[in-house]
Amino acid sequence: MITLDEATIRGLVGLGADELNAIEAVYPLIASGAASMPPIQRIDVPEHHGEIDIKSAYLPGVDGIAVKVSAGFFDNPQIGLPSLGGLMLVFSSTTGVPEAVLLDNGYLTNIRTALAGAVAAKHLSRPDAATVGVIGAGVQARLQIEALRLVRPITHVRVWARRADAAGELAEGVRDDTGLDVSVVKRPADVAVDGGIVVTTTPAMEPLLDGTVRRNGLHVTAVGSDAEHKQELSVDLVAAADRFVCDSRAQSERLGELRAPREAGRPVDGVELGDVISGSAAGRSHPDDVTICDLTGTGAQDTAIASLVVARSRSTS
Amino acid sequence: MITLDEATIRGLVGLGADELNAIEAVYPLIASGAASMPPIQRIDVPEHHGEIDIKSAYLPGVDGIAVKVSAGFFDNPQIGLPSLGGLMLVFSSTTGVPEAVLLDNGYLTNIRTALAGAVAAKHLSRPDAATVGVIGAGVQARLQIEALRLVRPITHVRVWARRADAAGELAEGVRDDTGLDVSVVKRPADVAVDGGIVVTTTPAMEPLLDGTVRRNGLHVTAVGSDAEHKQELSVDLVAAADRFVCDSRAQSERLGELRAPREAGRPVDGVELGDVISGSAAGRSHPDDVTICDLTGTGAQDTAIASLVVARSRSTS
Repeated sequence: MITLDEATIRGLVGLGADELNAIEAVYPLIASGAASMPPIQRIDVPEHHGEIDIKSAYLPGVDGIAVKVSAGFFDNPQIGLPSLGGLMLVFSSTTGVPEAVLLDNGYLTNIRTALAGAVAAKHLSRPDAATVGVIGAGVQARLQIEALRLVRPITHVRVWARRADAAGELAEGVRDDTGLDVSVVKRPADVAVDGGIVVTTTPAMEPLLDGTVRRNGLHVTAVGSDAEHKQELSVDLVAAADRFVCDSRAQSERLGELRAPREAGRPVDGVELGDVISGSAAGRSHPDDVTICDLTGTGAQDTAIASLVVARSRSTS
Repeated sequence: MITLDEATIRGLVGLGADELNAIEAVYPLIASGAASMPPIQRIDVPEHHGEIDIKSAYLPGVDGIAVKVSAGFFDNPQIGLPSLGGLMLVFSSTTGVPEAVLLDNGYLTNIRTALAGAVAAKHLSRPDAATVGVIGAGVQARLQIEALRLVRPITHVRVWARRADAAGELAEGVRDDTGLDVSVVKRPADVAVDGGIVVTTTPAMEPLLDGTVRRNGLHVTAVGSDAEHKQELSVDLVAAADRFVCDSRAQSERLGELRAPREAGRPVDGVELGDVISGSAAGRSHPDDVTICDLTGTGAQDTAIASLVVARSRSTS
């Protein structure tokens, strides 16, 4: 069994075309039922404001099975430790033998989440989408911008975050790194332009975007909500989309943006991203459509990216 | 993070009094709801006749949280690998930081399962129980006999197994190791004597024991059933018990000996072992009572034994 640390893992996978293909390939397996992806296992640790989540999946044709253990302990900063941590185990999908411990500190989750945003945009946004607006100014906001450049001719970036200084720092960093035209906007809805892309990347518990964000031909990807108490998009916005797509309907209804509409008595009929990718469900059917994709994050993505790490580690050693 | 191999782990914990106390302590935490023990996560791998099960639990007052990944890949013997494998991860229960990888190859599961049998017998069998009958002749049968000697004055052992040669080998091994009076019996029900203990340790899918095993004052512990298709005790036997106890009612009804009675329209009202240990539910109320305890195996036991391994590893290093 090999153990890889974060620096090694960073050297093996990133936001590249092969990684994008690996993540794109998982969604049809989820939608068709070929993937074996059990519900997330969650261990609550109320005494220490902590929780541990476990995601896993088997994907036919992929060599490894990842078991990802994510820890969130929210008193940790008081003693100088990060709130979030975790690791992945990889088992052989043909024998069950443990093959690797990936001490990635969340890096692989960040990468596979950003790539999922690119996959969603590839299949739902307008091909000529050149402006991306991001809500939030953390690591994921930056990675989403970078990943979208794999699939769309991005030239302009708009940023809104609750903390204006954080938005400014992100804007400056992206501008320096990419030379793109980056601006900070005053209100969340200002990140949207006709024919553009918006990505929400926050742990918000109240919607940050409502119907006022609608622009002709807009595509919105919601990345933040992955728990029963989180929500980034208003019920009005979700209900008014011309097409609502999600990575996993079961998860979106429980943990994602399909939850609030259902609880409000206005259930929305989502299709799964894999059905759009495989062509068995329609995606965008008109240039002026407003499309939404809700990404709750799946064990299938973890299995795909972790298996790629193990394969590359072997071929380089 | 430390990594311990099986030999090291075997040197740190075994069938001792401290281990027994650690396992005994988990059941009241399960029964009271103080333990945070999510449903078992299972990944099916149909193409390779495999499955991966994940158990975990947080126990207030215990330093670690174990995440146990058990793999069963039933084509493995064809290529010279064992069918069963797995490992445990241990995380700090106060910070979520990963602390240990325990490459125990199932040893800790064997130990904590045998100790659970001893805990069940301690609280449900007659204090003077001197004869233990085992069904099955594998590792667990042998460990159950050994563990019961921690809590009861065992002098006689009776063995029945589907394969007579395996039963003979087990009997000889136990006789050589312990000096106990050990015999192989012809029919499953012959393992039982008045006032004795019976432990079933098989992966049977059809009941091996029915009502004919009943003897005055008998206690039966069923260890084998831990999946929807397994059953060791007949519905008649379960329904006729003076007291039916289980480690986890939720698991016993889904994976254990409460499943078949429910499906047969004869649901049995089980109490949890932790309520018997804490005194909030009655156990044996008369020397002639027939008692049954169904052990499906819990993540709480894994957390208890794995935390003990980590604590002892630290104190010896």
